[in-house]
Amino acid sequence: MQARLDDVKAQVQAALDAAMAALPDSELRDAMVYSTVGGKRVRAFLVMESCRLHGIQGEAAAPVAAAVEALHAYSLVHDDLPAMDDDDLRRGMPTCHVQWSEATAILAGDALQTLAFQLLGSDAIGDAEARLRLIRAFSEAVGAQGMVWGQAQDIAAETADQPLNISEVKQLQRAKTGALIRFSAIAGALIANEDHKPLDRYAKALGLAFQIADDILDVTGDEDLTGKRVGKDDAAGKATFVSLLGLEGAKTEARRYVSKATDALAQYGDAAENLRDLARFVIERDT
Amino acid sequence: MQARLDDVKAQVQAALDAAMAALPDSELRDAMVYSTVGGKRVRAFLVMESCRLHGIQGEAAAPVAAAVEALHAYSLVHDDLPAMDDDDLRRGMPTCHVQWSEATAILAGDALQTLAFQLLGSDAIGDAEARLRLIRAFSEAVGAQGMVWGQAQDIAAETADQPLNISEVKQLQRAKTGALIRFSAIAGALIANEDHKPLDRYAKALGLAFQIADDILDVTGDEDLTGKRVGKDDAAGKATFVSLLGLEGAKTEARRYVSKATDALAQYGDAAENLRDLARFVIERDT
Repeated sequence: MQARLDDVKAQVQAALDAAMAALPDSELRDAMVYSTVGGKRVRAFLVMESCRLHGIQGEAAAPVAAAVEALHAYSLVHDDLPAMDDDDLRRGMPTCHVQWSEATAILAGDALQTLAFQLLGSDAIGDAEARLRLIRAFSEAVGAQGMVWGQAQDIAAETADQPLNISEVKQLQRAKTGALIRFSAIAGALIANEDHKPLDRYAKALGLAFQIADDILDVTGDEDLTGKRVGKDDAAGKATFVSLLGLEGAKTEARRYVSKATDALAQYGDAAENLRDLARFVIERDT
Repeated sequence: MQARLDDVKAQVQAALDAAMAALPDSELRDAMVYSTVGGKRVRAFLVMESCRLHGIQGEAAAPVAAAVEALHAYSLVHDDLPAMDDDDLRRGMPTCHVQWSEATAILAGDALQTLAFQLLGSDAIGDAEARLRLIRAFSEAVGAQGMVWGQAQDIAAETADQPLNISEVKQLQRAKTGALIRFSAIAGALIANEDHKPLDRYAKALGLAFQIADDILDVTGDEDLTGKRVGKDDAAGKATFVSLLGLEGAKTEARRYVSKATDALAQYGDAAENLRDLARFVIERDT
């Protein structure tokens, strides 16, 4: 899987670089480029594999993968702001507002969201109907019905009288991190206009496994490897899968979701092996 | 024109209300609704008139007008943040971050941008090609090539060694406020896939007239009427059309742009009378 992941990283970076190169030279653009460098590219990988499963070429899939990573970068830049999670380290580097300024970080995030939608309009992706199916699913995944709703709930929970219970944490994470992961995994089916239910089931389980692994890394992880601060959730008294299930319970739950994810791919046979590998990777990673 | 403007206000508010009603009930949604209430609806009016000129029905135009107003609302919410212009009054009410919180204002702005793109995907607007033409032009108008670039330049100018000159101020405003006004004015031509050059010329002149009038109102305006703080530009030592041309010079320049704007509409005859009225209105308004 590592070779394929490296391949995806190169393709998505090329698509992002091309999109950024078309923007006017400015500190704003520098901050956008800075914020889109690095990362595990899990979402881009999902897009590229989902497209491959549906017979869609890399050139058509790359702008979609770039859109998803631009959107993800915007969400991290805004989440890291002082008024939100107030983080100073991301992907091993100072966060955008530390490196530049709060104003530049707000604007760079705003423009990265716009860029994501612009990329989804790319001719290379497919016919107009296919691109519109993507744009509509994407807007539902990342706005006030999806990712941003989840982030708002997460922030509200910090000042709530009592911590969230396990079903509330799952609901929150299904929106905050799950919705974009789900979009990424079904993108190929959306373009091809084919049934996306199996990939949807895969992505829902994968998203929760991924978040549980993140919560575990916040407890057991190494800042040098993760490239972000650890121990923050516990310090903030935040309800996480680890605080609710214990470390061993969370690990068991993550393995259960990985099984659910790989099971959902049965009909694709060997063609989905990379997606199965990814599901196993998300709980074994140390970054 | 007032009757038509009231009609547009009702249509765009209905489209916005319908879009918001589909979102989950939350403080986030309340903040989004709060931020989209009121306003002059100049951009929505441009969309509706541009569509009418190209034979596009109100039901098809309304989601586009709502998208433009949602986008405009997001830009105001983020511009008003403490790290940006730090404003506490907007449309006669506390700004979003004062009414709710900075985190909620950041997220409400983010979700309003998403909502704008979602609205542009509405089936009612027209065929898929038409909606994609809108989405592409819109993304170019509001991102790091357009509005957000202008806002970043505006903020950079505040800490620059010397104030901008008149041509730099025009370039900045063409992006910061002009790009969305231009999109609004050509929306009907984009949907109909017809020549948008005359409306483009109209909108470029209108945008500058509008901005000059805003600069004049910052000097001569009444907070009770404008619903926002006045005298801020002067206090910040900011280069504006008034600081560069003087009050009378700015008024002359605004009238010159209004003439340019109305002249650009010659080919449309009486059908464009509402757009001519709007151009005259923007420099006569006291709000």
